[in-house]
Amino acid sequence: MNPVRQSIAAMGTDLGPAVLAQCRALFDAEQLALLAQRPMAAADVVYGPHERHRLDIYRPQGDGLAPVLVFVHGGGFLKGDKGGVDAWPNANVGRMAAQAGFLGVVINYRLAPDHVWPAGAEDVAAVAAWIKDHAAQHGGDPDRIVLMGTSAGSVHVAGYLKLAGAGDIRAAILLSGLYGYTPLDARDMLYYGDPALYPDRMPMEAVAATPLPLMLACAEFDPPRFQAEFLGLMQDRFARHGAMPRAFIHSGHNHYSMSMHLGTADRRLSQEICAFVRETTQS
Amino acid sequence: MNPVRQSIAAMGTDLGPAVLAQCRALFDAEQLALLAQRPMAAADVVYGPHERHRLDIYRPQGDGLAPVLVFVHGGGFLKGDKGGVDAWPNANVGRMAAQAGFLGVVINYRLAPDHVWPAGAEDVAAVAAWIKDHAAQHGGDPDRIVLMGTSAGSVHVAGYLKLAGAGDIRAAILLSGLYGYTPLDARDMLYYGDPALYPDRMPMEAVAATPLPLMLACAEFDPPRFQAEFLGLMQDRFARHGAMPRAFIHSGHNHYSMSMHLGTADRRLSQEICAFVRETTQS
Repeated sequence: MNPVRQSIAAMGTDLGPAVLAQCRALFDAEQLALLAQRPMAAADVVYGPHERHRLDIYRPQGDGLAPVLVFVHGGGFLKGDKGGVDAWPNANVGRMAAQAGFLGVVINYRLAPDHVWPAGAEDVAAVAAWIKDHAAQHGGDPDRIVLMGTSAGSVHVAGYLKLAGAGDIRAAILLSGLYGYTPLDARDMLYYGDPALYPDRMPMEAVAATPLPLMLACAEFDPPRFQAEFLGLMQDRFARHGAMPRAFIHSGHNHYSMSMHLGTADRRLSQEICAFVRETTQS
Repeated sequence: MNPVRQSIAAMGTDLGPAVLAQCRALFDAEQLALLAQRPMAAADVVYGPHERHRLDIYRPQGDGLAPVLVFVHGGGFLKGDKGGVDAWPNANVGRMAAQAGFLGVVINYRLAPDHVWPAGAEDVAAVAAWIKDHAAQHGGDPDRIVLMGTSAGSVHVAGYLKLAGAGDIRAAILLSGLYGYTPLDARDMLYYGDPALYPDRMPMEAVAATPLPLMLACAEFDPPRFQAEFLGLMQDRFARHGAMPRAFIHSGHNHYSMSMHLGTADRRLSQEICAFVRETTQS
């Protein structure tokens, strides 16, 4: 087993700052090299009135309008940051997108507990609207937008589908998200509010029903709740649509490494993501 | 999209001789090249009294005893062949195994309707026993056996788990199999007999309960019944063991191409298989 894989396996399915820091250390050298190669094209672009309404843009080589891949970070509704010039986490996904020929857009959004449901979904919708209006001037095709999130970011992409329907996007990619197949936990209540409100607020019905192409992913070492959510949505999609959605179960990865490794030499997930974006944005 | 992937997507989820022939044609050139590179080490080795009790051996380079990867072909209980010197289908899996450093063993087994349940599982057990006794003289480690099947071959590997428990093996790999999560169809009755017997004969409980490491795989274009079986076993394993088994949902592949492409340039599944075999056969 390679050393990175061995380290991740040893971490098990735990979450928390210590595991996050360990994961970050595993990819630091490779991600700093990618950071040096792939400069940001536009930083802290304003897409709304709040200080968290900011996005960064990573531009591919070549002319013509590229498909737009938006990345929505995780952080349990309470934290997280798009990164940028100095901090690579989350920004690495934008750089990976640009490397693959897409316009990468990495966003911040408002956080709980100050900003509760549906603030995250509204912010994703504001980003989609901003891209519609402004992508072309950055080399992005406003008619070929794919949204991708991880963890709480997946919840907000799913929330966008609930809020906007198919909206302005071509497809959605949900890494290690929570949709409503398992009960709300205490931390999530800071975003969703009282559990009695969860059935009305959760995005389960929207992600299960949407006719948009979906790609779901789950890590081998995702905590059991995330595995249960993944399998719940897989079953629900299969039951309603007669076929599984595109899906990837990532061996040797955990809840954090799923997005943190994107852009490194382990290209198994990034290849699946990029193939899906290409297929779903063919004109 | 690459041309092979495009061709497979165009075939949809249909089964039948025409689709099988189309899949074979897609991989013919690459597989014939592999065939030329990787000669068989032993052909038509007798492991039992029936004329179908034959296996072929593909040996890796290097000294020392290698893990043994056994492949059990598909064919709806009624047909199929291990291939060999001239015919590459199924033999390609043995060659892929040898290329990866394993002793590849590709078997024939008795077929329905002449040979009914549990003939297939018994034959897999006879192979495991034969390997225990004879692997070392071919460079294989009798204590590091992994069984892999596809389609009906997965059913027989699962049947082996029902018959023998953990038996003599380290792990099992089940590509596109049927375990009992969906009703028996007319063709399967030629092997299993009357549907009333199926609850007692099906391997569902054995594969759901076994403490052995399992790897499950399903193709994006597997027919719906195979997708339902995959998801059923995933859910069942998760419910009983608290974690998903190692699993791979293979985008861009169908029921036949899952095993037929192994050994070609698309190494996504073969890499997962080989990593799993290495991990589960560490001494």
